[in-house]
Amino acid sequence: MPHVYYNSWLSAYKKPFGAVRPEDQVCFQVDVHENQVIDVQCRIRKENGTQEEKIYSMKDAGDHCFSCIYTPHEGKGLYFYYFSITWKEDNGEELTAFWGASEVKGEGKLYEEQHEVIPYQLTCFEKKEKTPDWYREAVFYQIFPDRFYNGNPDGKVNAPKRNSFIYGDTRDTPLYVRGLKGEILRWDFYGGNLEGIRQKIPYLKTLGINAIYLNPIFQAASNHRYDTANYMKVDPMLGDETLFQEIIDNLHAEGIHVILDGVFSHVGRNSVYFNYDGTYGEDKGAYRNRNSRYYPWFTFSEYPDKYASWWGIDDLPEVDKFNQEFQDYIYREDDSVLDKWSKLGVDGWRLDVADELPDAFIAGIRHKLNQYPEQVLIGEVWEDASNKISYDERREYILGNHLHGVMNYPFRNTVLDLLQLEKSPKELAQRLTQLHENYPEDIFFNNLNNIGTHDTKRIYTFLGEDRERLKLALSFLLIAPGIPCLYYGDEAGLTGEQDPDNRKFFPWEDIDQDIFKHCQKWVTERKQNNTLKYGDFILFHTEDVLGILRFTDEAYTIYVMNPHDEAKSCHFNDLHFLREIPLTDEMVQDIFKDIMIDGKSDFFVTGKR
Amino acid sequence: MPHVYYNSWLSAYKKPFGAVRPEDQVCFQVDVHENQVIDVQCRIRKENGTQEEKIYSMKDAGDHCFSCIYTPHEGKGLYFYYFSITWKEDNGEELTAFWGASEVKGEGKLYEEQHEVIPYQLTCFEKKEKTPDWYREAVFYQIFPDRFYNGNPDGKVNAPKRNSFIYGDTRDTPLYVRGLKGEILRWDFYGGNLEGIRQKIPYLKTLGINAIYLNPIFQAASNHRYDTANYMKVDPMLGDETLFQEIIDNLHAEGIHVILDGVFSHVGRNSVYFNYDGTYGEDKGAYRNRNSRYYPWFTFSEYPDKYASWWGIDDLPEVDKFNQEFQDYIYREDDSVLDKWSKLGVDGWRLDVADELPDAFIAGIRHKLNQYPEQVLIGEVWEDASNKISYDERREYILGNHLHGVMNYPFRNTVLDLLQLEKSPKELAQRLTQLHENYPEDIFFNNLNNIGTHDTKRIYTFLGEDRERLKLALSFLLIAPGIPCLYYGDEAGLTGEQDPDNRKFFPWEDIDQDIFKHCQKWVTERKQNNTLKYGDFILFHTEDVLGILRFTDEAYTIYVMNPHDEAKSCHFNDLHFLREIPLTDEMVQDIFKDIMIDGKSDFFVTGKR
Repeated sequence: MPHVYYNSWLSAYKKPFGAVRPEDQVCFQVDVHENQVIDVQCRIRKENGTQEEKIYSMKDAGDHCFSCIYTPHEGKGLYFYYFSITWKEDNGEELTAFWGASEVKGEGKLYEEQHEVIPYQLTCFEKKEKTPDWYREAVFYQIFPDRFYNGNPDGKVNAPKRNSFIYGDTRDTPLYVRGLKGEILRWDFYGGNLEGIRQKIPYLKTLGINAIYLNPIFQAASNHRYDTANYMKVDPMLGDETLFQEIIDNLHAEGIHVILDGVFSHVGRNSVYFNYDGTYGEDKGAYRNRNSRYYPWFTFSEYPDKYASWWGIDDLPEVDKFNQEFQDYIYREDDSVLDKWSKLGVDGWRLDVADELPDAFIAGIRHKLNQYPEQVLIGEVWEDASNKISYDERREYILGNHLHGVMNYPFRNTVLDLLQLEKSPKELAQRLTQLHENYPEDIFFNNLNNIGTHDTKRIYTFLGEDRERLKLALSFLLIAPGIPCLYYGDEAGLTGEQDPDNRKFFPWEDIDQDIFKHCQKWVTERKQNNTLKYGDFILFHTEDVLGILRFTDEAYTIYVMNPHDEAKSCHFNDLHFLREIPLTDEMVQDIFKDIMIDGKSDFFVTGKR
Repeated sequence: MPHVYYNSWLSAYKKPFGAVRPEDQVCFQVDVHENQVIDVQCRIRKENGTQEEKIYSMKDAGDHCFSCIYTPHEGKGLYFYYFSITWKEDNGEELTAFWGASEVKGEGKLYEEQHEVIPYQLTCFEKKEKTPDWYREAVFYQIFPDRFYNGNPDGKVNAPKRNSFIYGDTRDTPLYVRGLKGEILRWDFYGGNLEGIRQKIPYLKTLGINAIYLNPIFQAASNHRYDTANYMKVDPMLGDETLFQEIIDNLHAEGIHVILDGVFSHVGRNSVYFNYDGTYGEDKGAYRNRNSRYYPWFTFSEYPDKYASWWGIDDLPEVDKFNQEFQDYIYREDDSVLDKWSKLGVDGWRLDVADELPDAFIAGIRHKLNQYPEQVLIGEVWEDASNKISYDERREYILGNHLHGVMNYPFRNTVLDLLQLEKSPKELAQRLTQLHENYPEDIFFNNLNNIGTHDTKRIYTFLGEDRERLKLALSFLLIAPGIPCLYYGDEAGLTGEQDPDNRKFFPWEDIDQDIFKHCQKWVTERKQNNTLKYGDFILFHTEDVLGILRFTDEAYTIYVMNPHDEAKSCHFNDLHFLREIPLTDEMVQDIFKDIMIDGKSDFFVTGKR
């Protein structure tokens, strides 16, 4: 077998790094050490393309190098490639072997059998998704409105809903009030509201965040408000439109941007659109009147009681996103939902369950938002969005003209696996570099990173309330590429198992000052340090520690995390960088001379290039 | 067989009517139509007495009458009697038959077999239980404090408890928040409070009531507060002691008396006494410290987790009512629970689950209350308290020096059976007359009548929301002997199935004016009409209607209720009075000439004697 080497993460083998545009030229280069090479081919196919596979014979560039230039010939989408090497044995026999990716991408490996080859992914995107500057400089804070703060002077809850419960004390733990079949009997509220957010602007300023991701605020029956009752109305428990406008203005005046949760896959059963319980009139809404303007939004298999719903939950009838009038209502009309809130100053949207929204629907939303160039559009996708398949179709989320970025749950998984010592630093460096490669460069940096949201166990609880590991998770969130988003309360040491326990009320009387100050320090670093806001990055590791190099043309920042209980050395001889670094060997040696990192601790250094 | 007749309800056969004292002489008289009577005997035994049966030969008083005079020879208690008649047949054979009570008391019947005889009950009581005048003149109103009115100007709930829920809207229906095993996970509150009662004094005055039975108000975890946490403290959600004192004064100033709910059988698990959850200190309370002064109050089979509890409900550890220190604490010390609240002006007590309280404990309470002669003591007993057996023992509730009266649930059952047409007017007249006979006269008139409480389905719901039948029930409650007690909201047309649905919040925005005015009218009648407050009574019926005659030496009131859907006549020829009435035949004929009573309607007349 010949000696072959290719590594898609090194510029000596593939240039440029990562995803490309249709007009880009990609230079592939393979090292082949073999006496009698007959042919080295780059074999590439576009998913859903016109041909099974295109074959490019690679040029012998000398010094055992074979190269070719490739331009994605069928436009945006996913391409998959690998290499074949044909050579003649000393006995005259012609043999062929194949180089493809392994489970660990980047380096890949040699295959004898063609059908076993795992190809490399080459993402071809249509358009760079540059975001407004505010977004790239943002440190987000996610607020679940019912659980943050009640701004009424006496703690009175605004406009409590019929058949709901209010917690007796905001320190109580959340509880679903369920019937014998597990169904929700009454929704439970703490009474957090918009005025509460306004009153806590000083707190948010002290913490240092400069953007808010708000969980849903439109009128709804539940405390999470993912069961929209009226897209055009602020939930009365939270406040009203006038107050919302004021608060947006107040936040903007303080340099804090706000994105909303756009929940367009389904509505609440008791909504102005479906009107199951008749709240909106005896003969109004799709459920009660086939002539309702909303009737065509829904899909009834048996009118009125059998209808498509989100994950089979009757309370959440699904909307037909292909329905023209629904599209008009959400984004196409001049007074669409998006226009209404955009005109009030909203700075963008997080699209709930993006997997449930057809690409064309997302593109329609994006098209409208292009009228508001200061807005961003982020999708809720839990996996690598570059190759996500939902309902048997590859999704165009990140190929341009759709999303600016996605919620980066794989980032969270990586941090958790590292801090729980479940994977090696090497594997986790590879996993993140893989994501980096698959996503268009802008998208990757636009992704909204989290280490916990309203849909996950709280980070502190996940980490067994290990304070030092929590701090590492928080630091890494603020160091890493992508836009950091803190989940309210994580900075205060709030604990919580899965929903509903992860949605406790903010512990205003019991903020963990140690954790808070740690967050504050790293938020400040993030905002002051251009390498963190604008810089590129390269991951590295030793056997024990994970490091990240962030850099601009002018400066660099190095952060190394030791997730182990014991101190670990980080000598430059043991370092493995996953890509070529823009520092000289001398600089690296200088930085990593005799470094020991305490257990569950980190190493941080910045410098000029 | 001879013709025999005896009727304990007619003065021709038994005098005096009903229960007697040990020194009273009872005259029994039996009619026997037979040629050769050999002997007529009155056979009587005292329950738990010294002899099985005493036999009195009755004197032939001529005109087929046989009589004897009897004095209860063994003091207070229950006596059971019947008669034997021995005669000689024409063929010379001597035969004996027996006259005893039948299922329907009063008249009774002739038995051939001695062992089949159901004897008559003769109640012998120790002491007349005259109540203070205010009580005999009272129209009670039962208030479940959490569900009546929140007197805070903004509807704010006082001192909500940790881990409790507040209803979002007072119009919501009550709901237990339960876990999978049916256990209560959180208690639910509407937030009614003492200030709310104060603010509704004008309402209560308009309705016309002049006494309140308050469900528990002492500190407790639940909304019903039968799980006392501290007998010495007003629950902070309801108010405080100062406010309580003020409100008692305010109510008294308006002529409204107040009795409290005395819950002495058990306490709450999370009480200052038991202290299960440690709220009252790590090492305080019986559960946490065997040296606690409260430890001897409880009965542990395995310390600390196995203990006697009310109906096996862990949340309600049972107190040993024979424990001297508990008795001291509740009623014997100078600063006992009873003294504390008595000194604040409370007008009496309703003893919760009296069946669980030993007679001696009740006697102890009563002994203390004799120091406060304006107070009354009413027991919660669901059946005929004169012959109630609990834990295999006859109870002394009504025999003197114990209770002034009991909650009269048999009255409620009678009204419901009549209005649902499940029993004939005759049967129901008999049932009430039977109660009248068994209870000492004062006790009977002291009983606190109800047509629904916090422990029953609401009367309106029970009657299928039949407005006219509801009105009959309310009228009869206010006409009948015994002290009427309206359950809050019944006057407003409130509906409700069993607990918790029968504990809805008072519908202040939705008072049924028709029902309210009906109540108001009869409450006024009750208070103005001396025959209703002080008068004796006799029941009567036709096949279709039930009537009651109330009378004093000066006046009478007649009330007849037609529970049927159709109009019914009530001609004097069809009338059956269960006892001799103090009106002349002419008066009766005059009153009942050509009376037709509409369906679900009544007939009411008053007159001078």
